[in-house]
Amino acid sequence: MNLVALGTIALDTVETPFGRRENILGGSVTYFSLAASFFTKCGVVGVVGRDFPSEHFNVLRRRGIDTAGVEYADGDTFRWEGFYEYDMNQAHTKRTDLNVLASFDPKIPKEYKNCKYLFLANTDPEIQLKVLNEVKPTYSFCDTMNYWINSKKEVLTEVLSKVDMAVINEGEARQYCGTPNLIKCGRTLLDSGVKKVIIKKGEHGALYFSEGEFFTSPAYPIENVVDPTGAGDSFAGGTIGHLAKHGTLTDADIKKSMILGAVIASYVVEGFSIDAIKNKTQADIEGRYREFRKIVAFDHQMQ
Amino acid sequence: MNLVALGTIALDTVETPFGRRENILGGSVTYFSLAASFFTKCGVVGVVGRDFPSEHFNVLRRRGIDTAGVEYADGDTFRWEGFYEYDMNQAHTKRTDLNVLASFDPKIPKEYKNCKYLFLANTDPEIQLKVLNEVKPTYSFCDTMNYWINSKKEVLTEVLSKVDMAVINEGEARQYCGTPNLIKCGRTLLDSGVKKVIIKKGEHGALYFSEGEFFTSPAYPIENVVDPTGAGDSFAGGTIGHLAKHGTLTDADIKKSMILGAVIASYVVEGFSIDAIKNKTQADIEGRYREFRKIVAFDHQMQ
Repeated sequence: MNLVALGTIALDTVETPFGRRENILGGSVTYFSLAASFFTKCGVVGVVGRDFPSEHFNVLRRRGIDTAGVEYADGDTFRWEGFYEYDMNQAHTKRTDLNVLASFDPKIPKEYKNCKYLFLANTDPEIQLKVLNEVKPTYSFCDTMNYWINSKKEVLTEVLSKVDMAVINEGEARQYCGTPNLIKCGRTLLDSGVKKVIIKKGEHGALYFSEGEFFTSPAYPIENVVDPTGAGDSFAGGTIGHLAKHGTLTDADIKKSMILGAVIASYVVEGFSIDAIKNKTQADIEGRYREFRKIVAFDHQMQ
Repeated sequence: MNLVALGTIALDTVETPFGRRENILGGSVTYFSLAASFFTKCGVVGVVGRDFPSEHFNVLRRRGIDTAGVEYADGDTFRWEGFYEYDMNQAHTKRTDLNVLASFDPKIPKEYKNCKYLFLANTDPEIQLKVLNEVKPTYSFCDTMNYWINSKKEVLTEVLSKVDMAVINEGEARQYCGTPNLIKCGRTLLDSGVKKVIIKKGEHGALYFSEGEFFTSPAYPIENVVDPTGAGDSFAGGTIGHLAKHGTLTDADIKKSMILGAVIASYVVEGFSIDAIKNKTQADIEGRYREFRKIVAFDHQMQ
C-alpha cells in the first residue's frame, strides 16, 4: 500500500448557521482518505459499529479507498455532536460518544505493513506509537489534540520525534510550546526533535517549518462556508496524498502539496459532511489550483 | 506634494509582555508617513500640543517627511494608553485623552492641494470628507474605526464611495458588512460602491478586492513581536507610499505594494514606537522583500 491512515470514522451531528444534519458521515480518517484519494490509493485503519450504514463504505470504495483495515465491532459507531456559531471559526462540542472507539485496538492488515506513507490522525499517542512500530513505513506523519498534550505529553513527544512530520493546528502548537507566537512554536518544535512541522490556521492558511525552510500559505478563500468540519483532516489528506503520489519529501514538494491540500479543504467546507467533495474531479482540483496560483501572485515588475 | 496623509500624532503609553513605555511617539499619521517615507515624499496633516517634544519632529524630517501641515495647538498632545496581553493580537485601551484633537480643524497647506495621493487615516468621516473635498487628490484612500461605523455610518458610506480604496481591518469590515466571512465582506463593500478594498488581518496578512481581482497575502513572519502598535498604519503607509512612488493604481501594482507594506509593518512590530523602523534602509526593505518572495513560493514542477 502506498498510503495508510489511522483515525476515526464517525457519525456526526452538526449544526451550523446553514442547517442541522444528524448522523452524517464524518471522522478524521474519512476526510483524510477522501482527500488523499484524488492522488493515490489509501488504506484505512479504523473501527465502526454494527449501526454503521454500509452505503458510506461504498462512497469510499468508489474513490478507490481500501477499507480492509476497518473493523466492525459490536456496539455503536463513534459519534460527535457539535455546532458552529455565526463566525464558523470554532467548533463547539455538545457531546462525544466514544462507543466502539473506547476499546479500539487497531489491527493492521498484512498488505498495509511497510507502506510508503503512514498518517496517524489524532488519537491516544500510545496507539499512534504502537501502529508506527508495527507498520514501519518509509515516511510517517501525525496529528494530535489538546487532550493528549494535557494528559500524555511525554508519549506524545516520543511520537513527535519519531515521525517525519507533525501536522497540527495552531491551538495545539501554542499549547504544546507554551507560547502564542506561531513562528516561535515552529522553531520550538524543531528544536525539540520534530523533523518537519505544518501548523494549520484554518481560514488563515498554514505554516511549514523544516530545518532549512519556512513557508507560509494563505487558505483558498471561500465565501459560503457551510460546514468547516473535516477541513483540517482534508488539508492533511490532500497534502500527504499528493506527496505520496510523488514519492518524495523534499521542502519543494511539501510546499506545492500544501496548496493542493488547501484546495481540497476549500471544497470540503462548501457542504455538510463529504457532500461537496465526493463528486469532485481531477479537473476541479486542477482548476482551483490554477486559481490559487493567481490569487497569491504579486511578483511582477514595476517601472 | 506627491502624497499627503491626514491622521493623529500621539504620545502613547504602551505595555506589552516585553515592557512598558510612557509617552512614546505614536499616532496613525506618524506610522503611516514613516512607512511611506521609504518610497516617496509625504506631507502630514495633524495637530500636536505645546508639550510635544520637538525631537520627534526631527525624526520625521530626517526621513524627508514634510510637517508643514502639523499645527501646534494650545493644550496637550493626544494621548493613548493601552496594553497587549500574552497573545499580542488585541490592543486593550486603558485610556484615551483627545486633548488638542477634540477641537482639531485641519488646515491644508497650499502645496498639499491637488496632491497625487491622499490618505485619510481613521477620524470623524465628516472631517475626512471635508479634507477630501478641499485637497482634491488624484487618488484617495481611507481607513475608519468601529466608533464611526456605529455613530456615523451614513457619512462614512459617502466617504467610502468617494475614495479610490478603503484600507480597513477585519473587525471593521465584519462590523460594517454585518457578516463574519471576510470574502463576503469584500464583495459587499464592492457592491455598496467602494472601488477597491484592502482588509487587514494583522499577523494573518491581508486581502485585496477590486472589480476584477482578488488577492490574498500572508504577513511576514516575526518571531519576536515586541509591540504591535502601528502595524496597520505602517502597512497602509508602505503600501500607499510604494504606489505613490510608481504613480499608478493598477491591480498588479497594488498587490506588489501590499507586500512592501507588509515588510515595513514587520519591522515596526519588532520594537516599541518607531524604534525598530526609524533607521532601516532601502537595502533592509529590499532584503526582506526578497525573503518574502521566497517564503510564499510554491509553484515548482513536480515529476
